[in-house]
Amino acid sequence: MSTLFVSNARFHGERVGLRCAADGTIGDLGPEVAPRHGEETLDAAGQVLVPPLVNGHTHAAMTLFRGSGGELPLMPWLEERIWPVEAKLEAEDVYWGARLACLEFIRSGTTRFWDMYWHPEATARAVVDAGLRATIGAPTIEMGRPPAKVIVEARESLTMLEGLGEPIRPALAPHAIYTVGEESLRLLAELSAERDVPVQIHLSETAPEVEDCIAQHGLRPAFYLDQLGLLTERTLLAHGVWLDEDELALIATRGATVVSNPAANMKLAVGKAFPYPAAHAAGVRIGLGTDGAGSNDSLDLLGDLKLFALLQRHAAADATAISAADAWTIATGRAAPLLGATPLAPGAPADFLLLDANAPELAIGDLATDLVYAADRTAVDTVVVAGKVLMRGGEQPERDEVVAKAAERAARLGL
Amino acid sequence: MSTLFVSNARFHGERVGLRCAADGTIGDLGPEVAPRHGEETLDAAGQVLVPPLVNGHTHAAMTLFRGSGGELPLMPWLEERIWPVEAKLEAEDVYWGARLACLEFIRSGTTRFWDMYWHPEATARAVVDAGLRATIGAPTIEMGRPPAKVIVEARESLTMLEGLGEPIRPALAPHAIYTVGEESLRLLAELSAERDVPVQIHLSETAPEVEDCIAQHGLRPAFYLDQLGLLTERTLLAHGVWLDEDELALIATRGATVVSNPAANMKLAVGKAFPYPAAHAAGVRIGLGTDGAGSNDSLDLLGDLKLFALLQRHAAADATAISAADAWTIATGRAAPLLGATPLAPGAPADFLLLDANAPELAIGDLATDLVYAADRTAVDTVVVAGKVLMRGGEQPERDEVVAKAAERAARLGL
Repeated sequence: MSTLFVSNARFHGERVGLRCAADGTIGDLGPEVAPRHGEETLDAAGQVLVPPLVNGHTHAAMTLFRGSGGELPLMPWLEERIWPVEAKLEAEDVYWGARLACLEFIRSGTTRFWDMYWHPEATARAVVDAGLRATIGAPTIEMGRPPAKVIVEARESLTMLEGLGEPIRPALAPHAIYTVGEESLRLLAELSAERDVPVQIHLSETAPEVEDCIAQHGLRPAFYLDQLGLLTERTLLAHGVWLDEDELALIATRGATVVSNPAANMKLAVGKAFPYPAAHAAGVRIGLGTDGAGSNDSLDLLGDLKLFALLQRHAAADATAISAADAWTIATGRAAPLLGATPLAPGAPADFLLLDANAPELAIGDLATDLVYAADRTAVDTVVVAGKVLMRGGEQPERDEVVAKAAERAARLGL
Repeated sequence: MSTLFVSNARFHGERVGLRCAADGTIGDLGPEVAPRHGEETLDAAGQVLVPPLVNGHTHAAMTLFRGSGGELPLMPWLEERIWPVEAKLEAEDVYWGARLACLEFIRSGTTRFWDMYWHPEATARAVVDAGLRATIGAPTIEMGRPPAKVIVEARESLTMLEGLGEPIRPALAPHAIYTVGEESLRLLAELSAERDVPVQIHLSETAPEVEDCIAQHGLRPAFYLDQLGLLTERTLLAHGVWLDEDELALIATRGATVVSNPAANMKLAVGKAFPYPAAHAAGVRIGLGTDGAGSNDSLDLLGDLKLFALLQRHAAADATAISAADAWTIATGRAAPLLGATPLAPGAPADFLLLDANAPELAIGDLATDLVYAADRTAVDTVVVAGKVLMRGGEQPERDEVVAKAAERAARLGL
């Protein structure tokens, strides 16, 4: 099979060639790199080479629930709209919901995501079929079952996910401290250490969650997790809206990652912005996520990047609260090693975007500022993962089939 | 010249035909309306007919300043980045900046906008050449000149703008209460009444503006304007972030319109959200704007619609703070008659959008919710103004030329 060669792309102000190797890595990259005779060449003249985005927290298949949140806050949304329907979910629903999500991820330049959802094997299949990469965990919700049983299930789904290999990375995914008990969380921490796999958990999304944690355990949520051995470099905390400065200092010390989900937080009206300035000052590793389409309702991380930066400026009443360059680094996963972003360099996976330099929003101003505040995903022309072109010229040939199948599955569920 | 016929569009759940009349109005619209022999037909199967968006506050030509705001709040941004460059502006700069803006308006489904900027004749020419509609005012900034002179200039530019006729509507545009003195504002109010033209003014954008107004005039800004005869049904107030309940009640009584600009307010970090729940409860007429690209930095009102709704839910810590249906009504200008939105009905201007019903973000969920929270401008397939197709299939043939010319003008200005 012939490998891809990208010519004439702009990269850090230079015109470069990029050769993909047969194993899906970048073989060669630089101004001197030229195509060989007969090499399949993609001419990227007028296009800018940038790293892809990493969506640090989502529930991909929840595209099926798009629009169902309406005007509800978190708990009624979960209890009235989501959980009753989820009880009827089949693997095929999850597969097509996740395929729809993958379409949207690709369209917005996202090539890697962190997922927590039912039927994780179906999401994994969707990721492989779409050509993307994901870290996937089966959600753990205790619902009164004994911890020993909870752990057997978590272990089983972990073994299943571990068996899939790249592009799927396995994770544990306790839903939250209010849906999984102390003993189960402790056992999951041990399992994470034993198998050296990440743990993703929703944390400090709402004020009542924090109050309940203090009332029940005498500790704020991050300290509670730490006591259970669940705050390590392998830990991804989704939301973290209500973390205080002591918690942020602890999280920084432990090397855990916090993923902010500004659209979902604003939509569910949690009442506060993720404390980015304090987290940044403390040295916390930070990522950005869309959360699921049931509570966002898009999966467009490039759009949410603007929201993230604007919300921080707004919340701090300070136009210097976050720099465009830092926001772009965060959205591309390069502010938190756990997220799995890879460099644009020989030997690394051949995962990259080509942006249209003639997009109206990119023509004036500097690239990072325009990407954060002006451009949207219409500027993403080409998406390549492992040397394979997933989108070119904004075209996604599988679009109509995937949309139709997902809409059928949503209709089946009464959504 | 043959007129346009749109067949098979979905409109309020029905499949309809829409015939444009030779004068640019809608001739006929309904399920029974079928094309006549030889009529130029646009097949809108799989597309949804919706009204276009109205951008209630912008400075179109400021696309040239995109990205120049960086991490600055309002006053340093104006004083350090904007005003020194504006001193060098030529009409041709404004023309190409406004043409670039028009490209972006069309791409996001916006067909009418309210503009306040230097060289308004150049902006007007850009609007005509792009096929859009605009209400345009030459900014009035006093800068120590005598009110009599200020008014002569305002009168002259008004006469020039009045002479242009549709699609340009003239307006007066005192910049703000801190850049135009009491006597000039009073004379502008008289001129507005005499000529029956709208007045657009920035009001209550920042807290210091309110404090200064109280210190100087003993009144909050809306009461100060009212005292000068400048708060009427012809008045458009841009921003209104710091309006209090008494001011909102007064504005509602006077029938003035307030246009919220959430992206610019968050970017310039004014520290508060427009008080939508109170304004809505008081019965204030409300519109939505992007503000200029120097302080947003996009002109994508469909994107800002999501931001508007999310910011309201966030600020109120209440997921019911605004309904998706109300947000969509506001973005399409139908919550404030002054803005100039027209109905989708025979006799009204043939201005409309066709959305791609198969866009991934529109396939599941109800239309208004998806339009506010999930869809972005990639869902806008076709834009028609006065029966003329400005965009079809997302294609804008003039794009590359306009982008290149605008970039040249920005480079000339050192931007």
